[in-house]
Amino acid sequence: MSVLAVDLGGTSLKCALVDATGAVTWAGRHPTGRERGPAAVVATVLDVLVSMRDRAAAGGSVPRAVGLAVPGLVDATAGVALWSVNVGWRDVPLRALVEERVGLPTALSNDVRAGGLAEARVSGSDDVLFVPIGTGIASAHVVGGSVVTGASGAAGELGHVMVRPGGRTCGCGRRGCLEAEASASAVEARYREVAGDAVTAAEVARLAGEGDPVAAGVWGDVVEALADGLGSAAALVDPQVIVVGGGLAQAGDTLFTPLRAALGARSSFLPAPTIVPAALGDEAGCHGAALLARALV
Amino acid sequence: MSVLAVDLGGTSLKCALVDATGAVTWAGRHPTGRERGPAAVVATVLDVLVSMRDRAAAGGSVPRAVGLAVPGLVDATAGVALWSVNVGWRDVPLRALVEERVGLPTALSNDVRAGGLAEARVSGSDDVLFVPIGTGIASAHVVGGSVVTGASGAAGELGHVMVRPGGRTCGCGRRGCLEAEASASAVEARYREVAGDAVTAAEVARLAGEGDPVAAGVWGDVVEALADGLGSAAALVDPQVIVVGGGLAQAGDTLFTPLRAALGARSSFLPAPTIVPAALGDEAGCHGAALLARALV
Repeated sequence: MSVLAVDLGGTSLKCALVDATGAVTWAGRHPTGRERGPAAVVATVLDVLVSMRDRAAAGGSVPRAVGLAVPGLVDATAGVALWSVNVGWRDVPLRALVEERVGLPTALSNDVRAGGLAEARVSGSDDVLFVPIGTGIASAHVVGGSVVTGASGAAGELGHVMVRPGGRTCGCGRRGCLEAEASASAVEARYREVAGDAVTAAEVARLAGEGDPVAAGVWGDVVEALADGLGSAAALVDPQVIVVGGGLAQAGDTLFTPLRAALGARSSFLPAPTIVPAALGDEAGCHGAALLARALV
Repeated sequence: MSVLAVDLGGTSLKCALVDATGAVTWAGRHPTGRERGPAAVVATVLDVLVSMRDRAAAGGSVPRAVGLAVPGLVDATAGVALWSVNVGWRDVPLRALVEERVGLPTALSNDVRAGGLAEARVSGSDDVLFVPIGTGIASAHVVGGSVVTGASGAAGELGHVMVRPGGRTCGCGRRGCLEAEASASAVEARYREVAGDAVTAAEVARLAGEGDPVAAGVWGDVVEALADGLGSAAALVDPQVIVVGGGLAQAGDTLFTPLRAALGARSSFLPAPTIVPAALGDEAGCHGAALLARALV
């Protein structure tokens, strides 16, 4: 028994054939090509799935289900991709499209939630807040193997928890959201403002780790904002483990050492969740999509 | 079939006999007398329960279970009151003590969580964030008739979500917690600082409603802080309804009209939960205790 998994990102589409034990037997990547418009992106997803299905069948392993992780707001129950700024689509009945074209039962999920499922599985904890920090910041709270979805399916907007009143302007139009203060994009914008140079967040982290005072100042502000956001989340939902992923987590100890200290300083009588780096990197979404597919068969 | 319900507060103990339809057939109040120490408070709870049990039995209605709501951290599964600043106890095996003395199966809960269960039931919604605002601020997220407890049983500390970095000092030792900025105590402290007078939060609300500029200034700051805290909670957990209770909710439209406007101004693409006043006043905890007791039989 194998399943097909696809994680559609703004830049690349990751896909994998996963066997009955959960092992990846084949994996690939394709450009998303979102500049071609949402219809072309949907066509690419369908083509990739058909090609994987046929390739697997030719190898003697007939896939039994599809798991598909996509960015933005998703109605997992209806199987509809409601909205994504990244891909530019609205109300695409992806599950029906895949099931018709590929002929296999299909699970559709938001990419952060799929990634959270996979990271929670790896973490071994039953209560995990997964927080990918990249261009934006989102979260998925996985309790007992399921993602907490919220009443309108919109839970997990940790990036829009307010941490700095009157602070930096967020893409959502408000000010001081965690995403505006502490995403990888915010690191880059902050550094550009004080140093004048356009460098990547990874480079700012490297410079901060080497003791560059300007980079260290930016990094310190970002870590404090992150600790405020994670501290507020911990107070409200009390996760056992916070798994931090996304591009910013690549900074390793440069991020995790001061972040743990800053969160520890805030914990007082409140629960102090363990903070760990994500284990699956940018493959978390694809692994999660496979988990969702395997749950169908 | 009737049950006994007790809600132990820092000042008074509310108790009720509740029949099979959920109707209160008898209710009473006693002073908590916490100045006598935790052992005396426990003795009062036990005495009240025995007295209610015997009174009910004499009236021909033999109670079948006990529901007990208490302040502070509770291990509901173990039936132990872990910690309460208000009562001054630690690790009291309340369920075992009640079951031994009263001879009935007993459910133990935190008072805010019990209140949340009762308010959620009344609200008719399946996904309610109950937020009592009094001396402190707490929360209980009720989803599908159960309270979200968190990994260590400590979920719902909305009062310690950070809304004003470097702001007012909180009882927890940190600064800018929602509770330090926007509880009834914070309203009173803020007003005293600017006006010099020690008046109640209810009086500040009344003055603000009448257009007193000093009171209106204090009230406006409090409403903005509350909107930031509730907005962050909405972003993270996406409740359908937020039920605001406690003493501050007694301000009625003086609170709810600007609070709804301030939260609406923050919602952008995020879910905008309905905000309603609590329906049960200070009887929510007792009603919730009765619900928990009825679930045992």
